[in-house]
Amino acid sequence: MEKGKYGEHRVLQPSNGCLPQAAWKIDNTPEILSNEILIDADILNITSTAFNALKRRNNGDKERIKAEILAIVAERGKFQCPDTGSGGMLVGRIEKIGEDLLGKVDLVEGETIATMVSLTLTPLFLQEITEIDVDTDQVFVKGKAILFESGIYAKMSPHLSKALCLAAMDVAGAPGWTAKYVHAGDKVVVIGTGKAGLLCLHEAKKRAGNTGLVIAIDSSEAQCQLVRDAGVADHVLCMNAQDNLAVMREVDRLTNGTLADFVVNTVNTDSTEMSSILSCKDHGKALFFSMSTVFSKVALGCEGVGKEMTLLVGTGYTKGHAEIVYQILLENDVIRSYFERVYGG
Amino acid sequence: MEKGKYGEHRVLQPSNGCLPQAAWKIDNTPEILSNEILIDADILNITSTAFNALKRRNNGDKERIKAEILAIVAERGKFQCPDTGSGGMLVGRIEKIGEDLLGKVDLVEGETIATMVSLTLTPLFLQEITEIDVDTDQVFVKGKAILFESGIYAKMSPHLSKALCLAAMDVAGAPGWTAKYVHAGDKVVVIGTGKAGLLCLHEAKKRAGNTGLVIAIDSSEAQCQLVRDAGVADHVLCMNAQDNLAVMREVDRLTNGTLADFVVNTVNTDSTEMSSILSCKDHGKALFFSMSTVFSKVALGCEGVGKEMTLLVGTGYTKGHAEIVYQILLENDVIRSYFERVYGG
Repeated sequence: MEKGKYGEHRVLQPSNGCLPQAAWKIDNTPEILSNEILIDADILNITSTAFNALKRRNNGDKERIKAEILAIVAERGKFQCPDTGSGGMLVGRIEKIGEDLLGKVDLVEGETIATMVSLTLTPLFLQEITEIDVDTDQVFVKGKAILFESGIYAKMSPHLSKALCLAAMDVAGAPGWTAKYVHAGDKVVVIGTGKAGLLCLHEAKKRAGNTGLVIAIDSSEAQCQLVRDAGVADHVLCMNAQDNLAVMREVDRLTNGTLADFVVNTVNTDSTEMSSILSCKDHGKALFFSMSTVFSKVALGCEGVGKEMTLLVGTGYTKGHAEIVYQILLENDVIRSYFERVYGG
Repeated sequence: MEKGKYGEHRVLQPSNGCLPQAAWKIDNTPEILSNEILIDADILNITSTAFNALKRRNNGDKERIKAEILAIVAERGKFQCPDTGSGGMLVGRIEKIGEDLLGKVDLVEGETIATMVSLTLTPLFLQEITEIDVDTDQVFVKGKAILFESGIYAKMSPHLSKALCLAAMDVAGAPGWTAKYVHAGDKVVVIGTGKAGLLCLHEAKKRAGNTGLVIAIDSSEAQCQLVRDAGVADHVLCMNAQDNLAVMREVDRLTNGTLADFVVNTVNTDSTEMSSILSCKDHGKALFFSMSTVFSKVALGCEGVGKEMTLLVGTGYTKGHAEIVYQILLENDVIRSYFERVYGG
């Protein structure tokens, strides 16, 4: 097969022309074609979904977890949890840039990057697993990985620790898109104030500005207090976002009946879709980040209440998202301290 | 409970304040509050999903199907298939408009409308089922229904038969949104050329105009021929939309490598999400109409190929969608004949 920008040339099984993510087995030969980048892999950041499955299957035994990861990668040429289908990302140094990409990518050999595409589509060749940190789901390795022409990556910030950069990047899509969708004077609702939600709030407050209005919603009083301390919302509602009608009534009250121009939902529990829709004005925009979002609940729910809205599927990537999230951590001491406390400084 | 625009005052079970669609039982008393509209119900257009389940449970026996529909509505105050959760819509005459809505809705008493909100949230009181048409999934009734303040509806076209209006309205959201998203000169891909896809194609061709480019994709040669006869595409690709990479290559070729500005997906089979994403250019828009769309496949798939796109959830309603779809049927003889042939003239 001709070499493709999506790495389709590395698919080994099935043979009917799928992409690497959908493939069962990909070619992990650690030698690059002219449109690929070779990475000296350092850390695998396994998703918590996949890492919990690994721990469960191996009773938390580090050596058994190591052995299973090595077996998966040897069999499939990539890391993908057999139970959940989930992967993660990796950190490493640029070892070699294919000749077709020289001058087209803003990378130099030796530079440290994190891949922003999933491990489930990244060719990976492991020589050894040196250590596993079961608290942070990080797997330290010796090995090589391949980044395709379409592969996205982020550089580390020179002003922040590697651990902080990684934790921030993991949710950088949400504040990145928020930065692009929020305009001066907008009324914004952020549902969920965890890692992603806090970053969205900071960005919403900054972009909507003093003529805008930002409302944060979370069921945890501790998270609500964090939002207040961080100074990133005009109003903080401590309530369950599954209580769709109550959320609507509160947002209606705080916006004097206009409802929000833009609503971003970052809650990882079910049945919060309608809180986004009911909080948003007609012709407003609602952005969904949670993987627990159900497509038909959004589509049919919006139709059921007779609203005309722009309903957006959020993705983990938008151009400049890493730079946006690093800037937030430099600007907001409370949010940075929170990330350092939870994810290590 | 105070009367609400979404009919929340009619929810009987559960009692914790959900919306009528999520409710188990709603109050179907056929007397309106001042912010409601009473409809003399005539035809229930059950979704094919729900009607197939009714037929299966009752071995296709009309009398048993009738009895089950009456039992469901008596128990729950609305029609909702117990297996699939699916409903439908209804046709009837405006009997009475609540005083709060007089002058606010463009309706007069006696006028025939179709409700555009689901039967799963519409209070329904049935006196009798007079007939069932098992070919068109239509249930002829004597009864009353309630339209809430937020409820949307469409009028019949004076130029088209009622059957045609109903069949068209069922999928009117797709061409309605297509009309709004396609601009002069756009390159458009429509995946799936069934009822919704054909209407989208006509609209795409009209809005993109002679400086645009419209590509239709369907695996059925008969549907492809219909597209050619209707004159609504510049290129027709007869291929399986699950073959994501092949779709990308063909669209790439036909657009001279630029890919599409806008892709609308109307295919009701799984694993076609990536065909939309791969056919669309960076910063383009992809609109998903199929209820078989999987949220995480869209979000993670787009991220996996490193694209920045506007990913839109399509809904069955957008302002003016009925007028747009009636106009298509008046403008395009081939599409109108197809609808008449399949859904009755």
